[in-house]
Amino acid sequence: MSNPYDGLADAGEEKHWAFGTGFTAALSDVDRVVPSSVDRDDLVAYCLMLGDDALVYSQRLAEWCSRAPELEEDVALANIALDLLGQARLLLTRAGEVEGAGRDEDALAYLRDERGFRNVRLVEIDCGPGEGGDFAATIARLLVFSAWRLALFQRLTESVDPVLAAVAAKGVKELAYHRDHAAQWTLRLAGGTAYSRERVIAGLARVWPYVDELFTPHPVETRLAAAVDPATLRSEVDGVLDTVFDAAGLERPDVEQIAPVAGKAGRDGVHTEAMGYLLAEMQHVARSMPGALW
Amino acid sequence: MSNPYDGLADAGEEKHWAFGTGFTAALSDVDRVVPSSVDRDDLVAYCLMLGDDALVYSQRLAEWCSRAPELEEDVALANIALDLLGQARLLLTRAGEVEGAGRDEDALAYLRDERGFRNVRLVEIDCGPGEGGDFAATIARLLVFSAWRLALFQRLTESVDPVLAAVAAKGVKELAYHRDHAAQWTLRLAGGTAYSRERVIAGLARVWPYVDELFTPHPVETRLAAAVDPATLRSEVDGVLDTVFDAAGLERPDVEQIAPVAGKAGRDGVHTEAMGYLLAEMQHVARSMPGALW
Repeated sequence: MSNPYDGLADAGEEKHWAFGTGFTAALSDVDRVVPSSVDRDDLVAYCLMLGDDALVYSQRLAEWCSRAPELEEDVALANIALDLLGQARLLLTRAGEVEGAGRDEDALAYLRDERGFRNVRLVEIDCGPGEGGDFAATIARLLVFSAWRLALFQRLTESVDPVLAAVAAKGVKELAYHRDHAAQWTLRLAGGTAYSRERVIAGLARVWPYVDELFTPHPVETRLAAAVDPATLRSEVDGVLDTVFDAAGLERPDVEQIAPVAGKAGRDGVHTEAMGYLLAEMQHVARSMPGALW
Repeated sequence: MSNPYDGLADAGEEKHWAFGTGFTAALSDVDRVVPSSVDRDDLVAYCLMLGDDALVYSQRLAEWCSRAPELEEDVALANIALDLLGQARLLLTRAGEVEGAGRDEDALAYLRDERGFRNVRLVEIDCGPGEGGDFAATIARLLVFSAWRLALFQRLTESVDPVLAAVAAKGVKELAYHRDHAAQWTLRLAGGTAYSRERVIAGLARVWPYVDELFTPHPVETRLAAAVDPATLRSEVDGVLDTVFDAAGLERPDVEQIAPVAGKAGRDGVHTEAMGYLLAEMQHVARSMPGALW
């Protein structure tokens, strides 16, 4: 555990929060023009895919707020959730402005139905807390997700879409922390007690059926000039995960993959049962006061 | 709403999260010696009081994670919760080290019973989200709490206890943002629609019965050399709140105060019915795996 007084070293910092929340008025100087080589409809769909991954996963991580097994971990998971929520805001805003139909980040987050969400199913499944919930499964998902997304964002920094490239450049720094955090916990759990080791093995088995989907390209990902084909990331991500597994003395799970439904999966808006409950929770406040000031 | 791309301006920053979460190893150089004028038992109790205020309130704010009416507000409330959780960690750690009984921040947060919590009742009541929950009541509580705590922390920066003074110096910057955020929302709601104005008036009435308790000194607060007597803060805090109310065209609520139970209130460990549910939620994970690695 880190020194709990470390935070005091920040007392002299002028900077407060990582994301704009109404207190800063500086305008970004990122070029928002969509390059001519980029199909606008596909760019909208792609920004929704990557934005929804982050939005839905941040919702899942936020469920741990004030419920983690130690206060330091509470802070860490909340920070990770906030990083991803920040990525989601940028990507949904980009989707909305390129779409040009007047939908902003809030409309996209709160007013779409389940079939409109393009996230991979890995981020929506319920890994706890609560009944059946499990901290080890949460760490297992974080390890897989952040290793995959970091590899993706590293490639996306070269995207021909200037906003995607800028979002990726910011995200790479965040995701490197997330991946490192998950790897540290994986080692700690695997090398801890017999019980903690058993839990992390079970946690990896819980999330592993959703791994293949991460690397299965959707037609939009294949043809969009600004996108990265996720199939090309597989060997790199496998290598990272194997390195962690080796250090932790763990085997890569040998678990059957979840098949798409009629050939469709999360990127097509086909989700697991957990997704409806998640959206009900996330959208309840905004939908119960449609058009209200807040 | 701020420019959603503001966050991209942070892309060049090396600094990542506001609080230490295991990634930094720097030791703080704050002097931890308890001054001879300070009673150690009272200092422990006082650190628990201020730490529990922040811990319990951060739990309440965290309930809004991914449920706020707009994504930007989600981020803001989560950031405020994290600021307060950071304050709680510092204060509980200080309580534990001065107590000298081997209890760290986690033991104090997760293994005390309801009667051991010393927070004011304002922070524990349920202001939503969910059934009966209300964003306006959340903003009303944030306004009152942060105006009061900011005034308190400004005075505590002069505390003879060096750790309390350092925690307060850091906290003042955070609380100034929280108070400003709540004041901005109060104006926005009061000056918005008839409905939003009605909700903010109802929200203030919801939290107002718990205001007197903030200024009622506990014997520890009266006699501890390192503490601030909260009664001395009343006129300053009233002035701040009246300024906001005047700008918003609101009346100060005229609502009966919650009486202490047999002369005792939150600072004595006597809480409202909501406290037990809140602790059950917060402590469930840690208590269901006592002594486990995590």
